[in-house]
Amino acid sequence: MTQKILVLPGDGIGPEITAQASRILAACQARGLDVEVEEGLLGGAAYDAHGEPLPAETLEKAQAARAILLGAVGGPKWDKLEDLSKRPEKGLLGVRKQLGLFGNLRPAITYPQLAAASSLKPELVAGLDIMIVRELTGGIYFGQPRGIEERSGERVGFNTYVYSESEIERIGRVAFEMAQKRGKRLCSVDKANVLEATILWREVMERLAPEYPDVELSHMYVDNAAMQLVRAPKQFDVVVTGNMFGDILSDAAAMLTGSIGMLPSASLNESGQGMYEPCHGSAPDIAGQGIANPLATILSVAMMLRYSLDAPVLAERIERAVGKVLDEGLRTADIAAEDTRTVSTAEMGDAVLAAF
Amino acid sequence: MTQKILVLPGDGIGPEITAQASRILAACQARGLDVEVEEGLLGGAAYDAHGEPLPAETLEKAQAARAILLGAVGGPKWDKLEDLSKRPEKGLLGVRKQLGLFGNLRPAITYPQLAAASSLKPELVAGLDIMIVRELTGGIYFGQPRGIEERSGERVGFNTYVYSESEIERIGRVAFEMAQKRGKRLCSVDKANVLEATILWREVMERLAPEYPDVELSHMYVDNAAMQLVRAPKQFDVVVTGNMFGDILSDAAAMLTGSIGMLPSASLNESGQGMYEPCHGSAPDIAGQGIANPLATILSVAMMLRYSLDAPVLAERIERAVGKVLDEGLRTADIAAEDTRTVSTAEMGDAVLAAF
Ligand SMILES: CC(C)[C@H](C(=O)O)[C@@H](O)C(=O)O
Ligand SMILES: CC(C)[C@H](C(=O)O)[C@@H](O)C(=O)O
Repeated sequence: MTQKILVLPGDGIGPEITAQASRILAACQARGLDVEVEEGLLGGAAYDAHGEPLPAETLEKAQAARAILLGAVGGPKWDKLEDLSKRPEKGLLGVRKQLGLFGNLRPAITYPQLAAASSLKPELVAGLDIMIVRELTGGIYFGQPRGIEERSGERVGFNTYVYSESEIERIGRVAFEMAQKRGKRLCSVDKANVLEATILWREVMERLAPEYPDVELSHMYVDNAAMQLVRAPKQFDVVVTGNMFGDILSDAAAMLTGSIGMLPSASLNESGQGMYEPCHGSAPDIAGQGIANPLATILSVAMMLRYSLDAPVLAERIERAVGKVLDEGLRTADIAAEDTRTVSTAEMGDAVLAAF
Repeated sequence: MTQKILVLPGDGIGPEITAQASRILAACQARGLDVEVEEGLLGGAAYDAHGEPLPAETLEKAQAARAILLGAVGGPKWDKLEDLSKRPEKGLLGVRKQLGLFGNLRPAITYPQLAAASSLKPELVAGLDIMIVRELTGGIYFGQPRGIEERSGERVGFNTYVYSESEIERIGRVAFEMAQKRGKRLCSVDKANVLEATILWREVMERLAPEYPDVELSHMYVDNAAMQLVRAPKQFDVVVTGNMFGDILSDAAAMLTGSIGMLPSASLNESGQGMYEPCHGSAPDIAGQGIANPLATILSVAMMLRYSLDAPVLAERIERAVGKVLDEGLRTADIAAEDTRTVSTAEMGDAVLAAF
């Protein structure tokens, strides 16, 4: 049966990078991948067109799709919108929530060709390969009550950090299973010395552990995790944490690889339906210049093939093509270095297609 | 009038490092500093002796003191305590809250002698000098309601992230004033694209800005701040943020200097009463071995002299003495390198005293 793919270019560099990734997707179709691709509006682009960051039409298409490829959302143009519910980010959060995409997989890998681009000393990041599993539809991002209101004569802003046992268990299982397929070490990050919500988190992780006897579970406080990522990132295999801590730690981890322009991510629900997007953002400062790096988005297509479309052979082909292009010394501006050739977004797309 | 100083050695390496810092304090007394020093129990040490991490006697002494010197609290011995209110950390949080120590100053400085110890490339951290101003008595650390309870047949853990305008304004002023005394740049870190509590935060910072026309205010999302700290930490001068984000970012910043064993911190209330402590923790793995680095605690005494005791000349003397000892090549194990001499905790104390 033909499966549906929805491409959401979004804002900033989103349209440029998804354009290149779509060419790869088309090449996969030419090689027999039975999918039907359509496009939709999300984020600032959707707000500008329809006054809503997540129009009903986009949500319907998203629900009908097996997988979504997202560029990125947001930018200074919409940062001043008074009504938070109209901001581009709310469109993204809406898709995550409505489709129940609770399992966010964020690999932090150092590409051997790019180790020198890291701000860390090369020996600390060479060969780095961490998988951060972030809970994506709960925690303080979605907790109720929330808002800004008047209390005893002044305004007060408040949000709620909340996790239920079943939410924790669900993401815990994703992480344990991921660890089983990888280095068999799982580090759960919390702030159980201060926050009750994370005491329950730690307790549930402990309760699950005996079901995965081959996985070694450890716990770390979030402040220490931020330090350890900087000090010795290779100590980690799989990291599991809540929505807010995951947002912070996965970005720090991505940046320290030096390969942030290269890192894809997946957000999955229980039926394997997923949204795929690069880890970097919408980079409004370079939007429209044709210089953005499309590789993280192209590698997001590979993740999509692997996790939602059961096409691991095509996924590997894409990954090999990207490796080949890097080996050839082609680089977009963000990862350019001595003795490499700086190419445009489209030229990078051409090169990957040629190597595919 | 003789002012009171309370020394709280705490847990782990706390007693060893505060012992050395107390010798420096005594040397200051010998040079005319008019203070009376007493000791108290806090954290696990207090729990073991009295069943409470913050005994009434300690709180009374703390309230009567102009300044408190704390070693560190916590350790695996007490991590399994079911009752969160008995954990060592709650003793520390109790002192902060009861004394209203809302303004946490966490410098992240790279000592020139230690730049090579950073995991970042030396050129990225040489000369680094950031001041992180963290709100310390509000936010999710203290927000109500909080707890773990049964809801629709399963347990749920919850905490509340809450800030009032007056709390934000208070810490904002500390940060703006700090920026005025330094590089005149202030970066406020929030997650205003998702959390209402931090929308109010950003709004209040904007409202204060015109009162400090010489300070350039910018805003950054917390995930981006974590990335920028790793990518190019020298872009920051003063950073202001809430309790939880400050906990994470200040530890990351401290670690990337390579000088974490050297970094003091201050926690102040409106009347200049303060608690001073090293940024590193209780390091239970090396406790009792006499090898811990006492310099962050000694430098905390210098901060105390400057911020609570109005004795900047003595503060500078201490800082110069520490610089001299480093120049001489003396290092505790944590910062040891080629061509340096590794010394014990007490030998380091001896050396600073000799240079004082
Ligand atoms: C854009 C924003 C709402 C989002 C988040 O905080 O989750 C982004 O930072 C991410 O990590 O995907
Ligand atoms: C020990 C702990 C409660 C504390 C905190 O989270 O504030 C510590 O990490 C710190 O930063 O001083």
